Amino acid sequence: MPGILESNRPCAGKGLVIVNTGYGKGKTTAALGLLLRAWGQNMRVCVIQFIKENGSASGEVLAARQLGIEWHTLGDGFTWESQDLMRTEIRARDAWALAQTKITDSTYDLVVLDEFTYPLQFRWLDAKEVVAWLQENKAPLQHLIITGWGAPDELVQFADLVTEMQKVKHPFDQGIQAQPGIEF
Amino acid sequence: MPGILESNRPCAGKGLVIVNTGYGKGKTTAALGLLLRAWGQNMRVCVIQFIKENGSASGEVLAARQLGIEWHTLGDGFTWESQDLMRTEIRARDAWALAQTKITDSTYDLVVLDEFTYPLQFRWLDAKEVVAWLQENKAPLQHLIITGWGAPDELVQFADLVTEMQKVKHPFDQGIQAQPGIEF
Repeated sequence: MPGILESNRPCAGKGLVIVNTGYGKGKTTAALGLLLRAWGQNMRVCVIQFIKENGSASGEVLAARQLGIEWHTLGDGFTWESQDLMRTEIRARDAWALAQTKITDSTYDLVVLDEFTYPLQFRWLDAKEVVAWLQENKAPLQHLIITGWGAPDELVQFADLVTEMQKVKHPFDQGIQAQPGIEF
Repeated sequence: MPGILESNRPCAGKGLVIVNTGYGKGKTTAALGLLLRAWGQNMRVCVIQFIKENGSASGEVLAARQLGIEWHTLGDGFTWESQDLMRTEIRARDAWALAQTKITDSTYDLVVLDEFTYPLQFRWLDAKEVVAWLQENKAPLQHLIITGWGAPDELVQFADLVTEMQKVKHPFDQGIQAQPGIEF
């Protein structure tokens, strides 16, 4: 399978599938960094957030608005309440449908699926099907960034670049609360 | 020592010392993400790059210029040639002197010292002295982000938030070259 995949893709200017996973900080922020970098290179970028609490007040959303970056936040605030879970599931499926239209569109140079591992984790979307769909349909030169803990094996195998962010020390452990500009 | 340190800092709105280390990708890009987030929150930000090859052509520098973000690149391209090492050492010391003026300046909300672990690793700067200086002089509410592999123990102990980026899979291993918007 990897052989077939490789042969379909040019070696220079390859559209990378990038996964930022692990329990540490920096998964989303590293994606934001690539977003900024790509934007600086005049690339067409787009973000779809699957689950995010801080919505329109977050620094990244405020920044994206000023930069004219296309940004979709379909996930509402996430809780473990069953009612919320169901609502989140529906929204996550909608977000994936939207994502698919961007991922097939070669005019996008970089697409970020933030917290996309959650719908895979909860099996609202089947990881195997998602990967098979990406293999078939992803615009070949487009870079795709997927963030979130617990990236499924299928996705890790499919991805070109996988980084695990590991927590060494976290200020929440010391009772320090989330702060603007840092957590949101 | 941590007790003394803690008592000097307010618990809400604490200026965090953040370290992104490890051999994986995402150390600098996560710092860039926080930069974007903080910029979006109208915070005053500043970046000092200690060692970086791509200079003014990099997406982050191009983006920072458009965003009006203060950005200093004092490290020139890094090689292992001894002549270059010496030049890099001098530049790194200059960069630290500049950094000190920013770190003591409470009008900066967030300062990024990109690849700052290198001068510590090579002992051009003494990690203990740097940490002691930070303890004494850092503007208390300012967030300070330090990136680079092999963060010294003193710095890890001093920091509030430490993340290790671990490589799971990297496209360079597959012979895929660095690309604009991704690596620079």
